[in-house]
Amino acid sequence: MATYRAKIVVIGDELLSGKIADANTQVMAQWLDRQGFHLDQVILCGDSPKELRETLERAWSESNLLITTGGLGPTPDDITKTILSQVFQGELKENNVAKEMVIKNYARIGKDWSPQTNSYHIIPSTMEVIENPQGLAPGLAKVEEGKLFMAAPGVPRELKAMLAEPFIPLLDRAFPEREKDQQVMTIRTFGIPEEKIFFELMPNLWDELALEGKVSSLPQIVGVDIHLTFKGQEKDLEAKKNKWQERLKDSPLAPHIWAWEQISLEEFIIREATKKNLTLGAAESCTGGLVGHRLTNVSGSSAVFLGSLVTYANEAKENLLAVKTETLKNFGAVSTQTAGEMVAGVKKALACDIAVSLTGIAGPGGGTEEKPVGLVCMGSANSKGEVTTHEYKFRGDRNYLKLRFSEMGLHLIRQAIDNH
Amino acid sequence: MATYRAKIVVIGDELLSGKIADANTQVMAQWLDRQGFHLDQVILCGDSPKELRETLERAWSESNLLITTGGLGPTPDDITKTILSQVFQGELKENNVAKEMVIKNYARIGKDWSPQTNSYHIIPSTMEVIENPQGLAPGLAKVEEGKLFMAAPGVPRELKAMLAEPFIPLLDRAFPEREKDQQVMTIRTFGIPEEKIFFELMPNLWDELALEGKVSSLPQIVGVDIHLTFKGQEKDLEAKKNKWQERLKDSPLAPHIWAWEQISLEEFIIREATKKNLTLGAAESCTGGLVGHRLTNVSGSSAVFLGSLVTYANEAKENLLAVKTETLKNFGAVSTQTAGEMVAGVKKALACDIAVSLTGIAGPGGGTEEKPVGLVCMGSANSKGEVTTHEYKFRGDRNYLKLRFSEMGLHLIRQAIDNH
Repeated sequence: MATYRAKIVVIGDELLSGKIADANTQVMAQWLDRQGFHLDQVILCGDSPKELRETLERAWSESNLLITTGGLGPTPDDITKTILSQVFQGELKENNVAKEMVIKNYARIGKDWSPQTNSYHIIPSTMEVIENPQGLAPGLAKVEEGKLFMAAPGVPRELKAMLAEPFIPLLDRAFPEREKDQQVMTIRTFGIPEEKIFFELMPNLWDELALEGKVSSLPQIVGVDIHLTFKGQEKDLEAKKNKWQERLKDSPLAPHIWAWEQISLEEFIIREATKKNLTLGAAESCTGGLVGHRLTNVSGSSAVFLGSLVTYANEAKENLLAVKTETLKNFGAVSTQTAGEMVAGVKKALACDIAVSLTGIAGPGGGTEEKPVGLVCMGSANSKGEVTTHEYKFRGDRNYLKLRFSEMGLHLIRQAIDNH
Repeated sequence: MATYRAKIVVIGDELLSGKIADANTQVMAQWLDRQGFHLDQVILCGDSPKELRETLERAWSESNLLITTGGLGPTPDDITKTILSQVFQGELKENNVAKEMVIKNYARIGKDWSPQTNSYHIIPSTMEVIENPQGLAPGLAKVEEGKLFMAAPGVPRELKAMLAEPFIPLLDRAFPEREKDQQVMTIRTFGIPEEKIFFELMPNLWDELALEGKVSSLPQIVGVDIHLTFKGQEKDLEAKKNKWQERLKDSPLAPHIWAWEQISLEEFIIREATKKNLTLGAAESCTGGLVGHRLTNVSGSSAVFLGSLVTYANEAKENLLAVKTETLKNFGAVSTQTAGEMVAGVKKALACDIAVSLTGIAGPGGGTEEKPVGLVCMGSANSKGEVTTHEYKFRGDRNYLKLRFSEMGLHLIRQAIDNH
């Protein structure tokens, strides 16, 4: 089965000066993956005519599918159409199909358009005009046998709409034989570094997986994701998953696997807690509210998440969570003893089924030899009211430590839901 | 003055399959801009050896400075070093400098390293080894006259640390004549859109600024930053700032300016509150902890930030913040009345000088015609105990709305500190 090779050229100086971040590449990459194309390269290119022309000519000669985004707007630095008329050896001309489309697009926002408004109707003579369902400037395309060029606007919303609709029939025209079905099996692990998995725990795993497709491994905040990409339908993904779940279920990796799907930890938690009808709460010190923030990033979290008591000051721990003055005095704010009282306190204050507490040292200041930056103590309270406490050490700067602390805290919530 | 041309090659299949978003390009683009380089292109390239080699050879021949990120890890798909040994006509060899660095890096995380652990000490023979202050695998470099190649890891935290430290002396070695003395004056405004500033409020401002350098305007979460980039030393920046502060102090823009420096809102708040010895607290509903999270991202925030009561459920608002049942019943959770009681409640619970409360609808569900998604009510309590309430409407998806809500809440805290 032939694999079609794709390239993307993202056009715009504002990306290269760092003023904005590229919001389109990941969307296009995922779309191409689903459509069965292999994305070879993405090139972010500025508005310099010579460089843009050379880049487009080279990219077009090297790929089956080339997509550009950006540079179709009305300002003088929008030069894509001029360059395309050179690349495809045409000339810029008024185009009646484009004219009608632009009039229709303007009517959609309640405005009139005339050729004096802008040059949206001027199109390279060797190219086709493509609908832009969410914007004003039409897209462009060039279809050859086994080759396709598509130019889309840079506005993320407009680009997404073009990928969803007018670009699909173009793919079908240019690549009638294309393979649409690529599947990705994901194994999400937790609490073990990449090298330990592949060098110590399961030294043959990579090669064994590689017999069935392309393997990649991606370190996460406190774990590693393993991906296996292979050709097949959705039912094949199910079969593949079942086979590997069986293969790994008694392996040394088993206790570290927490999901077999691409889902964020917070979404996983909200979904599972909702299924089991369990309410959640947190008591946060070092994470400052990040656990609550992450859980409430999930739409629908209000069904199970009751709240989080961010008690940064010791007095707040005492007054709001009933942590004992002696506990703080004898063991310190960062101690399993304090974490245990915090989690018991918040479970009572919020009357939630499952709770977690976090108290640690995010640094850069505040560390001692005995309690260094990166130390965190956590408490976990399950639905039976049982409290366990935990101590971890992580490394990183303040922001990264807060993130890793919160990730670990979320895993404690996940485990408590699992064990219910 | 010569302009040096830079290219970036970002290596990794996980970017091209859309599994992760590129988090490094914008950081590097901004860094290059500050260092006086012109970034021509960014190329996202997969792990295919042939294509990576051709891409690197071409990019190296076309640029003064080439930076790669990614592919330095321990797994079989980390092929950067193999390709670099081909590009720079060397061979992969054990390197004693690298060995010592790796041992030191592992010691930093309390672990031992030996050549059996991984191949971090195997380095292309024609390249230099570079410190990785935040990670395990060393970076690589090749310095020629007027040309520099630098290879950094793909982990954002490690990359940032390398840009901040070991990469700077490499730039100085390769480009001793480079233009370093570029200053940026920043005017940070708040609560007014870009077009209103430059078309209504101060129609001559842009041209007036442009007489003194390069002007740019960058919309922020709930405001606009105006930058003036000009050639000069640090003392010139001070003089420029004084001049423009004088020029704008009675202008219509004055009430919208909140800072004349590149400082985050949360850092500004912690610095000013510390100066004035004012303690801070928050009561959050729709932001779920984001206000507390952002304030505690600032190192030293524990001196003034006491805590945040994240009361997502109505019962939590009643029990922890003493919001009246009738208030919730008569006006709803998203109302200025509830926001007012929330802020009074948290000020009492935490005994803080200044507090803010936020209750709103982050969507996508939960909106009504009367109270649509994007509506947020806030309360602000100042050091005298006076409470004011506010209502705002924003647009965006759930995550962006939470961010905008939190930004607005932080501005209320900033104003209360200002007014003290």
